[in-house]
Amino acid sequence: MCLSFMIYFDNSATTFYKPPSVIGAVNSSLKYLSANPGRSGHSLSLKTATLVHKARINVANFLGLECGNVVFTLNCTHALNSAIFGIVKKGGHIITTCLEHNSVLRPLYELKRGGIIDLTILSPVSGTDFVTAKQVELAKRQETCLVIINHISNVTGAVQPISEIGSICKKYAIPLLVDGAQSVGYVDIDMGAMGIDMLTIAPHKGLHCPQGIGVLAVREGLSLKPRIYGGTGTDSLSLYQPLELPESLECGTLPTPAIASLNAGIKWTLKHTHSNREKLFALSDFTTSELKKISGIKIYTATNSVGGIVSFNIKGLHSMDIADILNNDYNICVRGGLHCAPLMHKFLGTMESGIVRASFGFETTFGDVNSLIKAVRNITHNI
Amino acid sequence: MCLSFMIYFDNSATTFYKPPSVIGAVNSSLKYLSANPGRSGHSLSLKTATLVHKARINVANFLGLECGNVVFTLNCTHALNSAIFGIVKKGGHIITTCLEHNSVLRPLYELKRGGIIDLTILSPVSGTDFVTAKQVELAKRQETCLVIINHISNVTGAVQPISEIGSICKKYAIPLLVDGAQSVGYVDIDMGAMGIDMLTIAPHKGLHCPQGIGVLAVREGLSLKPRIYGGTGTDSLSLYQPLELPESLECGTLPTPAIASLNAGIKWTLKHTHSNREKLFALSDFTTSELKKISGIKIYTATNSVGGIVSFNIKGLHSMDIADILNNDYNICVRGGLHCAPLMHKFLGTMESGIVRASFGFETTFGDVNSLIKAVRNITHNI
Repeated sequence: MCLSFMIYFDNSATTFYKPPSVIGAVNSSLKYLSANPGRSGHSLSLKTATLVHKARINVANFLGLECGNVVFTLNCTHALNSAIFGIVKKGGHIITTCLEHNSVLRPLYELKRGGIIDLTILSPVSGTDFVTAKQVELAKRQETCLVIINHISNVTGAVQPISEIGSICKKYAIPLLVDGAQSVGYVDIDMGAMGIDMLTIAPHKGLHCPQGIGVLAVREGLSLKPRIYGGTGTDSLSLYQPLELPESLECGTLPTPAIASLNAGIKWTLKHTHSNREKLFALSDFTTSELKKISGIKIYTATNSVGGIVSFNIKGLHSMDIADILNNDYNICVRGGLHCAPLMHKFLGTMESGIVRASFGFETTFGDVNSLIKAVRNITHNI
Repeated sequence: MCLSFMIYFDNSATTFYKPPSVIGAVNSSLKYLSANPGRSGHSLSLKTATLVHKARINVANFLGLECGNVVFTLNCTHALNSAIFGIVKKGGHIITTCLEHNSVLRPLYELKRGGIIDLTILSPVSGTDFVTAKQVELAKRQETCLVIINHISNVTGAVQPISEIGSICKKYAIPLLVDGAQSVGYVDIDMGAMGIDMLTIAPHKGLHCPQGIGVLAVREGLSLKPRIYGGTGTDSLSLYQPLELPESLECGTLPTPAIASLNAGIKWTLKHTHSNREKLFALSDFTTSELKKISGIKIYTATNSVGGIVSFNIKGLHSMDIADILNNDYNICVRGGLHCAPLMHKFLGTMESGIVRASFGFETTFGDVNSLIKAVRNITHNI
């Protein structure tokens, strides 16, 4: 089943490598801990509930969430929806950026279309890859109820100055929601120190966990309205959704095996963080330098990228065609197109062509990136 | 980690036994098919997308959904929310039953509280365990936009006459949503023949799959509004959610390992259906008969139950206390309380006491149920 001869450069979509400890945690959960957590009082259910509780603690510690709640969802998109619809108020104003993924833009545009909110979308300051705290401050209104910032762009790897924006949000008591899909696991995060009120995670990316789990971490004191309603295992006599976190946002049976994997994924990440980050930076730095030497190549990787991502185009070719050629002729998996981030491509002027994104992972070697460099060289020669 | 000395009688909450083929499918997915389906055009992503597509076909075939869509969600509750919020219209009227789980009741009560819908809740005809098609017909109004029926009660195992209700719904062109959480895998379902427009599944129950996956099967022609918005891997330039199923209701990364398990789970279920159902019926029939012989026992199991569930109380004890005693003194896991079905307990007159539910599974033996019978006998003697 494994196409093991392929070189996988799509780790920003999902990390292909899942550590044995992560797979082991899923297996153990399926074999020995299959009871339903938080639904019954018997020992097997309590054992599973303990595992889930442990995962909440581990996630909170990993993110520097000293006092608050960890909510488990299907994926990062559902976590973002829970945060956005949870906090939004009619007549509110939301500030965000053009770097956002459709998981942020589509809920916001739906709210705007429905006349619920007004929206300000900031673009990076000319000549840089980031929006500034000053821009956020200038965009702020009396009715601003939320600021949403994509920590690391899934298109260019651009890093936003979260701490500075966090300070501004704190100054005006506006909740700050950070989309950590591409950052958690790759840069250190301390929600408290950075002034983040809500943070969403895609554990199947930087934490090397399975697909099927998302996280919304919420600081204490924020009140979020449920978007989905159902059984919570609490206050069962009530025909209305309980409003206490995390249950209020967690309806129905939890994805226990994926939650179990978080404990192992965080442990693995903490152990490999330093070496993995250094390697990813070296790999992408080398690749970018080599690609720059090839005529007809345009690089889009942000100058402040922490590594792991190389974004480029070849003059005269559509990004999807480049991705197809790399896949079919060179056994290299990259992602062309728009990466579900339309406004970022509008900003970069690549709405027509898209961009080729090569995103490296734990198993990527210099041999692998050399294959990519050689392949791109060949393709440009053959145009 | 395994408390293997425990007798697990909470299979209605989640089946504890996961077949090796199901665990194997999850493992294979994690090891060899970790790419993101539907997000890139490269071979590894396409391979995963093929697996997901295969699961949609298998689910559709298994349910007799000839023409329609299979939507993957976090769990059955999210599937029900997708269906309810997807179809509801302001000023609409919804018919449902007192047998429903909070996964149906809480969304409906929220819609009612918001002035969006009016609600009719039917109770079983006196002396039976089911509502009739005639009751549905009498409750129907011009503005009725949905009928929701719990196929099999999670409290008593009561089976509702879906085909008859389906005929009535078809006659008046009212969509019928069936909550199949407790039925799929335990009784044959043919959505076409039974007149079911939408069916929800909890694969971690009757299909012996992992927790972390739900299914909404929708017949062709029904239009459902999204409740959650985000990237779909389709029409990425659009800042609005695409309206085409299944993508419109599937935002963000899918739970691929759990989806992979569906293929194995359905195969396993088909192979073991006949023997497993016979065994479950024999076990619960025997247990009910024996418990009935004990003084002070009240049985709540429905007379039309297809088996696998035994619901009872012991006079003078709260159901939660009985469950605790069974767990602590006899190593037997049952579920006391309200099972997230408050109106069913109101109907049964057990809102105060709750009910003890023993739900059997693939690994349950006559030795196991004899342990339960003996334990109950002891408890009643010691009151």
